[in-house]
Amino acid sequence: TIDAERLWGSLMETAQIGGTPDGGIARLTLSDEDRRVRDWLRAECDALGLSLTVDEVGNMFATRAGTRTDLPAIAMGSHLDTQPTGGKFDGVLGVLAGLEVLRTLDAAGYQTEAPLMLVNWTNEEGSRFSPAMLGSGIWAGVYSREYGDGRTDPTGDSFGASLDRIGYRGKARAGSVSFGAMFELHIEQGPILEAEGVRIGVVQGIQGMRWFDLTLTGTAAHTGSTPMNMRRNALLGMAQVIEGIDRIAKAHENAVGTIGFLDISPNSHNVIPGEVRATIDLRHPSDEVLDRMQAEVEVLVRKAAQAVGLEYRFEQISRTAPVIFDPECIASVRAGAKAAGYDTRDLISGAGHDAAHAAAKVPTTMIFVPCKGGLSHNPAESTLPGECAAGAQVLLEAVLDYDRR
Amino acid sequence: TIDAERLWGSLMETAQIGGTPDGGIARLTLSDEDRRVRDWLRAECDALGLSLTVDEVGNMFATRAGTRTDLPAIAMGSHLDTQPTGGKFDGVLGVLAGLEVLRTLDAAGYQTEAPLMLVNWTNEEGSRFSPAMLGSGIWAGVYSREYGDGRTDPTGDSFGASLDRIGYRGKARAGSVSFGAMFELHIEQGPILEAEGVRIGVVQGIQGMRWFDLTLTGTAAHTGSTPMNMRRNALLGMAQVIEGIDRIAKAHENAVGTIGFLDISPNSHNVIPGEVRATIDLRHPSDEVLDRMQAEVEVLVRKAAQAVGLEYRFEQISRTAPVIFDPECIASVRAGAKAAGYDTRDLISGAGHDAAHAAAKVPTTMIFVPCKGGLSHNPAESTLPGECAAGAQVLLEAVLDYDRR
Ligand SMILES: NC(=O)NCCC(=O)O
Ligand SMILES: NC(=O)NCCC(=O)O
Repeated sequence: TIDAERLWGSLMETAQIGGTPDGGIARLTLSDEDRRVRDWLRAECDALGLSLTVDEVGNMFATRAGTRTDLPAIAMGSHLDTQPTGGKFDGVLGVLAGLEVLRTLDAAGYQTEAPLMLVNWTNEEGSRFSPAMLGSGIWAGVYSREYGDGRTDPTGDSFGASLDRIGYRGKARAGSVSFGAMFELHIEQGPILEAEGVRIGVVQGIQGMRWFDLTLTGTAAHTGSTPMNMRRNALLGMAQVIEGIDRIAKAHENAVGTIGFLDISPNSHNVIPGEVRATIDLRHPSDEVLDRMQAEVEVLVRKAAQAVGLEYRFEQISRTAPVIFDPECIASVRAGAKAAGYDTRDLISGAGHDAAHAAAKVPTTMIFVPCKGGLSHNPAESTLPGECAAGAQVLLEAVLDYDRR
Repeated sequence: TIDAERLWGSLMETAQIGGTPDGGIARLTLSDEDRRVRDWLRAECDALGLSLTVDEVGNMFATRAGTRTDLPAIAMGSHLDTQPTGGKFDGVLGVLAGLEVLRTLDAAGYQTEAPLMLVNWTNEEGSRFSPAMLGSGIWAGVYSREYGDGRTDPTGDSFGASLDRIGYRGKARAGSVSFGAMFELHIEQGPILEAEGVRIGVVQGIQGMRWFDLTLTGTAAHTGSTPMNMRRNALLGMAQVIEGIDRIAKAHENAVGTIGFLDISPNSHNVIPGEVRATIDLRHPSDEVLDRMQAEVEVLVRKAAQAVGLEYRFEQISRTAPVIFDPECIASVRAGAKAAGYDTRDLISGAGHDAAHAAAKVPTTMIFVPCKGGLSHNPAESTLPGECAAGAQVLLEAVLDYDRR
């Protein structure tokens, strides 16, 4: 049985690293806070005698030997980076619960047949460097290391330079560290488990997600002396796109579509915006629906640019197909929840996860626990100690079940 | 006759301070670049033996004695701060042409009856700290010193702390430095003079201008796992306001209306924006039309907030009434242009100017020179050496004419 208090203690201890006054965490990937939480994790892994490998994009893999050396490892993990307005559980729970599983096995003197592996993926949030799930995506071969290194944050700082600066560029080639299966515990980030009073979500898959960079270019000019009919206002065009994305998403059942990020130039009170850059985020469980939405967005962008007299650049920066998780892994989660005595419910994940990239390479699944009001990417994100412990217990049982098969 | 080459040399020399690779200037008010150009101006004033007074908000006043001590000074000046994407002439020309006038009189050994005064106003642009024309506004008593000190830039830095940091907080109470008339030379920031091939604009007044801070508050939440019907997307509401402002301005002849600045929180690719702040800029030559536009904007904001389920705060931060310049000052500009041999055309200024606040206290007017394509607040802003010299010559003649009356 996992130690609920020890798990909660680790959650609260690491929440101090980048902790914000409103109870959240602002621990952007490859920042100094990210370095500190990575140092903390490394020290804990050392204390457990795990062997740690860091790959060339900063993904951390800590291995506990099994009784057999011919079996690939069973991995557990998630991410320790957060949103600028992140909560205390998104990602962190999956890593610290994995650590708690290893501590529990150590305390019990239990050795699995297969090795166990704890993983901390780099830049899952994609908040500082888009796209999201970049570390696992490079590991899975979806993006090249060069693509990753070249991604820049809004200040122009690059992923590669930031990784070097915090000292977490490992020697292992991305993708060279392998394992045989992956279990990711995560908060639901949706309202269903809480609403139905169910402890454990058995995740069947993840909806597809596509991100696009859109740049609209007009002419920066004086707001006072430039007549309305002589303007090329890039923000006016973007306003039409923001509303259009909302309309398109609402027109497709179960779809979501959002612009959450704008970079406005020069962003001055009395200058007509000359250039505006945005990230467009489209999601749906079906790739065909995503194709249709994408086509509609392309028309929308062209029309808005035309209407306002703007140039535009529209570029796909990521595409994660809908994922269906591995039946055997799912069976182990069901068995684990049963052993631990918790109700379950099948779910599809609305949020993207590193497990999506892992699933393309090895049998993978996820375990969800409730979060208050379905709220995440918000400092008020909340999951109770008992819910965290239940998730960690099911993670432990699922991994042991999978190991026994 | 003013020295055209010397004037152009000073323009190009100071353009290095905050100069950008695209040929513009980024010299935000009270920045280190602002300090350096102020140091430059102070040294030039010292070289001319002028007596310099800096007031408590950083406005700089340099006086050259006249033959009589019972007359108030005739002021010339403008501002040395620029937009983040500023050009080389907006504001700068008015200060450096005033300096050139004083240099010319010195070289000629000519002493006016009234003292002459060169003024550099603090924070005309309002780009770092809104509202615009803050230094002259405090001088004129429109805003208090405390209001000014408390204004913050997007990083949270305050006007007062920044002024102290660059060492330009003078001892003179704002408003205590007085003069008897003011002439401001400026680029037109509009297309008319260029289109009509006229050298000198005789400015009759400035249109009214009102600025508002608008904050829309919804809920930050995950873009992937938050269904469309559970969202309170602050940026979606703002998109409706951006489009509405554009519609309202287009519905009133000669009106302009713009949102040029947004502060989006958290501004992350995969977070539904929880809060968005904007500056709304409305302008028209008639206060009654501005009243109507303001009322329409208030309805617009209420409806957009309601439609998206947002809270809002709508706050007027500045209000500059339409200005009609002094007939005697205007007559001196006409006489000066005639003496210098240039065509003139009467104009109303679309942009706001420190002269608007000066005009509330003393006889004031402005002189405009052409700028290419009417473009300003853009690095490509362009006025030819001959056009700058013509403006400076008319400024000299106008001041001498006014002095003789
Ligand atoms: N789980 C999670 O919040 N992932 C971030 C990537 C995304 O879904 O936008
Ligand atoms: N002349 C000028 O650009 N002033 C800035 C204030 C404004 O008009 O917005």
